[in-house]
Amino acid sequence: MQAIDNPAIAQMEQRYRATFINSLWGFRPLALIGTCNQEKRTNLAIFNSLVHIGANPPLFGLVVRPDSVDRHTLDNIRERKEFTVNLVGKDFVAQAHQTSARYPKDVSEFEATGLETEWKEGIDVPFVLKSSIQIHAKLVEEHSLAINGTEFLIAQVSTIYIHPSCIGADGFVDHLSAQTAAGIGLDAYYAPELIMRLPYAKPK
Amino acid sequence: MQAIDNPAIAQMEQRYRATFINSLWGFRPLALIGTCNQEKRTNLAIFNSLVHIGANPPLFGLVVRPDSVDRHTLDNIRERKEFTVNLVGKDFVAQAHQTSARYPKDVSEFEATGLETEWKEGIDVPFVLKSSIQIHAKLVEEHSLAINGTEFLIAQVSTIYIHPSCIGADGFVDHLSAQTAAGIGLDAYYAPELIMRLPYAKPK
Repeated sequence: MQAIDNPAIAQMEQRYRATFINSLWGFRPLALIGTCNQEKRTNLAIFNSLVHIGANPPLFGLVVRPDSVDRHTLDNIRERKEFTVNLVGKDFVAQAHQTSARYPKDVSEFEATGLETEWKEGIDVPFVLKSSIQIHAKLVEEHSLAINGTEFLIAQVSTIYIHPSCIGADGFVDHLSAQTAAGIGLDAYYAPELIMRLPYAKPK
Repeated sequence: MQAIDNPAIAQMEQRYRATFINSLWGFRPLALIGTCNQEKRTNLAIFNSLVHIGANPPLFGLVVRPDSVDRHTLDNIRERKEFTVNLVGKDFVAQAHQTSARYPKDVSEFEATGLETEWKEGIDVPFVLKSSIQIHAKLVEEHSLAINGTEFLIAQVSTIYIHPSCIGADGFVDHLSAQTAAGIGLDAYYAPELIMRLPYAKPK
């Protein structure tokens, strides 16, 4: 094993370090965050920083870097207090990845990438039509991290749109059936296969 | 598509809802968090709530539920301000899963699950010997979420232990070579396969 310490990390070339640290943690969920401003100008951005917070009420967190292309997404979420989460399917990872390009604010990544918008009745933020698991969410809390100015947003699930065939008898969401992809770092996309599902662990 | 709204989620049977919402987000990283208290009593717990925060300095977040078995881990992290992150390999997912059992505080999950402890020179917290990617980390910030009392810990990478053969020329960590597993929900373990790696996205 090689030991790579803090000074060694600090001395890495910037892009090498970004690739290394971003890919260090392993497989991550991939979500396209759909937003719009008050004029219904839409925005779509890929995030791999979604994290489960709780089931009752159903809450999740989202890490947003204010200095990046995420900025348009953050502005829109703050303006509307609502957004959509659209899980990325294996068959559209290239289009999902393309949303990370630095498009100007007046360009919609829906149009630029060819991912079709879906508007649902009574909801004022756009979904990704192609996504087989879509979630309408509302912003409930925001934390600014003192150490690097990153924003941590907490949102509550409002409505989940999913094919009933993707939900098991015990509530387990079958992402193999939903064709959900996983990501590593900023550019690598994976299709997982099941190793095993285990019973509730008890001391033994 | 079926629409499952907030009242429907609230009415779900508790275990069904926990399984459903926990598994909704797709594939997540799996980390065994190694800690100990001042008396060197060790603790090991599996977490799937690790999230990348930044590369320079190298930071990550960890969601900790204060009402769960995570409590012993949280106490130890607060006491020592340092801990280890040990990525879960495909070949020990069953042992890693077993750390989620509700063992009493005086039982070490290292001993209970048979995952061997590794102590490194000059570091006072325990690593998982079997893990092919190990990280020594220090607590730098803590946020309490107003909405459900969850703690969001921010930690800085101190030293990374990894086989050089797992790092590509551009810094990309090859988790297929490291045999890293992915998780869904609280009990399902996956071995991903590469779909594709894409170039840095530019507007086109």
